[in-house]
Amino acid sequence: MNPLSVKVFTGKIYTSFKPLKVVRCLVVAFGRVIYAGSDNICEYICKNTLCDNINIDGIALPGFVDSHIHMDTIGIKLNSLDMRNLKSIEDVKNILKVYRNTIGNWIVGLGWDQERFLERRPLTRYDIDEVSSEMPIMLIRICGHLGVVNSKAIEVLKLDKIFKDNPNIDIEKGIVKEDILEYIWNNIDMDIDLNGYRKLLNDAQRYIIRYGVTSIGFTSVPISVLPALISMDLENKLIVKTHLYMDFTSSDIFKSIGLKRGFGDDFLRFMGIKIFIDGSLGARTALLSKPYSDEPNNFGIERVSSDILSLILYNSKCKGIDVAIHAIGDKALDIALDSIWSSLSTDFTRVEHASIVRDDQLYKLKGLRIALQPHFIISDFWVLDRVGVERAQWVYRIKSLVNSNALIGFSTDAPIEDINPWKTIYAATTRGIYENIELAKYTFNEAIDVIEALHLYTKGSAALLKRNDIGCLEPGCYADVIVVDRDPLDIDLFELKNIETLKVFVNGNLVFS
Amino acid sequence: MNPLSVKVFTGKIYTSFKPLKVVRCLVVAFGRVIYAGSDNICEYICKNTLCDNINIDGIALPGFVDSHIHMDTIGIKLNSLDMRNLKSIEDVKNILKVYRNTIGNWIVGLGWDQERFLERRPLTRYDIDEVSSEMPIMLIRICGHLGVVNSKAIEVLKLDKIFKDNPNIDIEKGIVKEDILEYIWNNIDMDIDLNGYRKLLNDAQRYIIRYGVTSIGFTSVPISVLPALISMDLENKLIVKTHLYMDFTSSDIFKSIGLKRGFGDDFLRFMGIKIFIDGSLGARTALLSKPYSDEPNNFGIERVSSDILSLILYNSKCKGIDVAIHAIGDKALDIALDSIWSSLSTDFTRVEHASIVRDDQLYKLKGLRIALQPHFIISDFWVLDRVGVERAQWVYRIKSLVNSNALIGFSTDAPIEDINPWKTIYAATTRGIYENIELAKYTFNEAIDVIEALHLYTKGSAALLKRNDIGCLEPGCYADVIVVDRDPLDIDLFELKNIETLKVFVNGNLVFS
Repeated sequence: MNPLSVKVFTGKIYTSFKPLKVVRCLVVAFGRVIYAGSDNICEYICKNTLCDNINIDGIALPGFVDSHIHMDTIGIKLNSLDMRNLKSIEDVKNILKVYRNTIGNWIVGLGWDQERFLERRPLTRYDIDEVSSEMPIMLIRICGHLGVVNSKAIEVLKLDKIFKDNPNIDIEKGIVKEDILEYIWNNIDMDIDLNGYRKLLNDAQRYIIRYGVTSIGFTSVPISVLPALISMDLENKLIVKTHLYMDFTSSDIFKSIGLKRGFGDDFLRFMGIKIFIDGSLGARTALLSKPYSDEPNNFGIERVSSDILSLILYNSKCKGIDVAIHAIGDKALDIALDSIWSSLSTDFTRVEHASIVRDDQLYKLKGLRIALQPHFIISDFWVLDRVGVERAQWVYRIKSLVNSNALIGFSTDAPIEDINPWKTIYAATTRGIYENIELAKYTFNEAIDVIEALHLYTKGSAALLKRNDIGCLEPGCYADVIVVDRDPLDIDLFELKNIETLKVFVNGNLVFS
Repeated sequence: MNPLSVKVFTGKIYTSFKPLKVVRCLVVAFGRVIYAGSDNICEYICKNTLCDNINIDGIALPGFVDSHIHMDTIGIKLNSLDMRNLKSIEDVKNILKVYRNTIGNWIVGLGWDQERFLERRPLTRYDIDEVSSEMPIMLIRICGHLGVVNSKAIEVLKLDKIFKDNPNIDIEKGIVKEDILEYIWNNIDMDIDLNGYRKLLNDAQRYIIRYGVTSIGFTSVPISVLPALISMDLENKLIVKTHLYMDFTSSDIFKSIGLKRGFGDDFLRFMGIKIFIDGSLGARTALLSKPYSDEPNNFGIERVSSDILSLILYNSKCKGIDVAIHAIGDKALDIALDSIWSSLSTDFTRVEHASIVRDDQLYKLKGLRIALQPHFIISDFWVLDRVGVERAQWVYRIKSLVNSNALIGFSTDAPIEDINPWKTIYAATTRGIYENIELAKYTFNEAIDVIEALHLYTKGSAALLKRNDIGCLEPGCYADVIVVDRDPLDIDLFELKNIETLKVFVNGNLVFS
């Protein structure tokens, strides 16, 4: 056989978690598994034919599928100024004076902490106005929930006009939080050119792949990144299998040329659009059926009504494109479920987040695709402030959703959460019990076991992307093989988050080691 | 091994014509050849593993690649009324009264011949106006160069206004010829819906495949067919590997989302756009450097200048999309060559037709992709009337173009010529000598041998579509295998046109037998 096309992997290889299957050998041709089984077949093939023999020094499993991330924003963050070691506001000013790496026409810095500053006070717009009144600048605190912008940034994004009465912006000091921060992230990338995007996306995929994530759902894709993605794809420079959910404002591209879910190739596929019903729990904009426990008159915001959403879902189903529906609060989930079932578009919808699910909603989830982010359990340690203990058992459910026969996939919403899948698996199996997260007390019954978590992060997420050829290493599947340092089925739960990825193969080719 | 993924073909199999390679066995996985070689390897694989063993009863070769056809028009013609056996104008009227198969909202008939009619006169608009004044009707004569339309057709296409002084239309009688006929063909398909196009395209591909054509360049694609093609592709219903050259008016789709040459999957790929420099020899609209021999003041028409074309080519190169440039006359080729070389866009251009090539143009063809239609040699038996014997040696050259190191691919321009590749190979190797075509006398030195013709129709055409994985059966190539009844390298040239295709496999799967 042709030495270039046939490869053999030998070692301890998990090919599937549900059902649990382990083999000693994979034979791979044209990037896909044609045989998964016993050692002696491999020996036999390699003795008699020319082939690459790859001995796995560790434990191999299918590459992870992260069903919901923001590849562009990951790239932007990777290209930001690292401020974690700055010791004073003077240091900040000095480094900004010489720093030249811009994103579009912005300077973005990440990781400052006033606790580390000599001056012991947060940065303000006046500090950075001293450095530049020409270039918009945003510097984000170590927590990721607060940032400071200069006057130029306020001016170009009209933050003072758009968010006049929003409590999350202090125009005077240039301090922005939560939803305003999110708004800025979504709007700073306007002037990035083709090469700029290619660099951002390439940095992002190199970062993603080294954690063993070999396929992604890229959500809220702005149309401006498409030329970069398509050119990288056609130059065989994409190494992560990328599935596109366009930002709602870019949904016209599906109409104009009749693009449908699944069109593209192995590394770049159009899937559909993303739409928001509500906001976030952090900003108290997630839509709840009863008010926030820490803001009794606030139910959150409704960005789209059930009637309009039904119409969108019906039209999208007819066009053959997916709609990924952001629904965090239980009331937002009501809207999503009503619209999905009234438009009979179950096969063309995904629900993103479903952070708060009432018992009476569970039976309506059967057969629906839902993208969960288990690490929110640990990151949102404050969540019971928002919803109170009486609603605790509805928050970040996993096991109940699995039992309701929803089709669950895992994700990180990166860069919101760390892309590292082992942190997510750790969160899904331990639910913050080791971190003394309050929610753990009320919802430990929602914890799942490691096999289930691995299944949901591989075949489960693959099903969200409508693929049965990734997230598995059985015959027919792509040989996206990751090698890790420890067997996840043979260690303490506490150790899961420390598992390290040693090597990553995509379509049988080594892309990280 | 998995019985579903591995197939073995045994028999006499040509895997390539240049260099000439014959094997006894192919091993195919995931639709592609992983081994091409000797029988005993196949026996060995099949004895020791589960696999489909396909014994070729005949001669196998790579599927043909037709680099330039009009799939939509083929479908329309296949769905037209067959008039070849009608014996009178009364018969025509009677059948039209009951005929209900419409294309869009037109009735189209093909193949009438006044020599067969009792009345011994051509049809006129008055004959068909009697049948319908509501539905536009076009009925084309057996020759394909003349048709009759009813008053409704003249009205909806405004033929009387647009072509007032054109000698190819007789408004009074409703008789249309050549360029007007072409215009009508290009404009009747506006109201075809998704299912209509799916039927047309499916009929077309089923027709194409049974002649052993497994890959095509689909030129002048109207944007309206895209939803049908994309939906068929995603339902795995495309069986011909289809490469799209959009009609120039639809070129915006490349801009809007950054589509580039090659994007898509194995069965449907975007390539670029098609643009016309001139017309045709038949209609005396091909652009010549000296006047037509049979119309001394006519040089043909120039649809685009060298300056504008250069700009288009430069922009397209920057966007990474192909431009297929229709250039039939030698003066049109001058414009094409000037524009290609001045914009340095050789890698992103194809020349279509190049029907008349002067000696002084040959050296500029080196490295350029050129799509030839050898059967024009036989069909255009009148061509020397147009250009005279003094220009005869420039007409429908093949060998000189091959020798100039142009990258030559073959095609039929179907439905202009018969899709049957063996007729084209016959024309390329015999040049009408058996048909007493006058051109043969002057240009027999341009004839090529069968091996060259087979090479140009497989790997040659594949190179026009920028693919090295079709048109061959070597390891890495797609297993598009056709089985024919006779060995083309072992029969008289005269017999080539009678070779029959017995079976066609695409990606290793049987699609015709």
